[in-house]
Amino acid sequence: MAARPKLHYPNGRGRMESVRWLLAAAGVEFDEEFLETKEQLQKLQDGNHLLFQQVPMVEIDGMKLVQTRSILHYIAEKHNLFGRDLKERTLIDMYVEGTLDLLELIIMHPFLKPDDQQREVVNMAQKAIIRYFPVFEKILRGHGQTFLVGNQLSLADIILLQTILALEEKIPNILSAFPFLQEYSVKISNIPTIKRFLEPGSKKKPPPDEIYVRTVYNVFRP
Amino acid sequence: MAARPKLHYPNGRGRMESVRWLLAAAGVEFDEEFLETKEQLQKLQDGNHLLFQQVPMVEIDGMKLVQTRSILHYIAEKHNLFGRDLKERTLIDMYVEGTLDLLELIIMHPFLKPDDQQREVVNMAQKAIIRYFPVFEKILRGHGQTFLVGNQLSLADIILLQTILALEEKIPNILSAFPFLQEYSVKISNIPTIKRFLEPGSKKKPPPDEIYVRTVYNVFRP
Repeated sequence: MAARPKLHYPNGRGRMESVRWLLAAAGVEFDEEFLETKEQLQKLQDGNHLLFQQVPMVEIDGMKLVQTRSILHYIAEKHNLFGRDLKERTLIDMYVEGTLDLLELIIMHPFLKPDDQQREVVNMAQKAIIRYFPVFEKILRGHGQTFLVGNQLSLADIILLQTILALEEKIPNILSAFPFLQEYSVKISNIPTIKRFLEPGSKKKPPPDEIYVRTVYNVFRP
Repeated sequence: MAARPKLHYPNGRGRMESVRWLLAAAGVEFDEEFLETKEQLQKLQDGNHLLFQQVPMVEIDGMKLVQTRSILHYIAEKHNLFGRDLKERTLIDMYVEGTLDLLELIIMHPFLKPDDQQREVVNMAQKAIIRYFPVFEKILRGHGQTFLVGNQLSLADIILLQTILALEEKIPNILSAFPFLQEYSVKISNIPTIKRFLEPGSKKKPPPDEIYVRTVYNVFRP
């Protein structure tokens, strides 16, 4: 039996949370090694375990994968979550890239100055409502299917649901103008593997708090 | 015969230059529609030609591709520049993602305040010399082959050469401590399709100048 993937990252969402979502959705059990100090990161760097000296890093299938997107692509491909042909793959890739641009704003938010945080919530709400959600609403309305691409679950659905739920924590009515996305969000949340991930006790991480922010500054300080 | 790809972007490097490099290396002729005004961008947006209202956009094989990485992945896959199996693909993906992180610094550089530009050249030189180039030097020294992955040209080689040459424009001796990368850079530059792209009269764009910066501000102003 293959070893379970092991994730190296601080104990919080950040850039690793998408990987946790993806593995959970694919039904893959995984272990986590939480970075809490600069010394732990240094040890990984000194041991040549991090290709570009950075985390996220995931030990999987005898490899030490780095770079968030590369990790997501590998796992998605392995678990048939990246489309059936090049055309589907390309649609999924574009949807994921757009959604990751939006998610990036959410990931960086806790590290802004307090004064900038409120303003940035307005910015991310606008980006979501004007630029990203209308695209996905139109796709779902257009083909009338449950999933974004090819009538089956893909990386695009997983990253979009992650992003919707993270935004809803900050802006509860963010989907109010998007009835198809509302229905979609409920349906994808009810896929058994994802439903389990959304229940208490899973490896899903809570919203970033002061302790997480302090840990990140501590681990990644120059 | 399939139509030639058409690239929509301002007349300068930015995020489109990697796409130009890739198409040229693959031996694909392409056309360009240069955005010079906000109205031209608005027209593309209003006509629903831009999935997330942004360029780069590439018309290719009946699709309107957006998001730099998705465009690169599609073209690389189509022209067998993305590895022979999932393991090679994943290596290429990681090398490309790391190199794109470095290239992003170069892309953003002309838009920094003049005072910050000099400091940022030092930063990107350090990142290149400490974090990225040692990785690629070690790979080349380790396997003794011409290309980074699988003994054949891939997207990883193309993006790395683009990044090396762009850095050398700012820091001519950036490869001085990396003999394998020096040799590699010469060899990849001499691949016929790439050699032609590096010669005068090709669609390779010159280093960003004031006119380019002004055009970008003009096209993308809110």
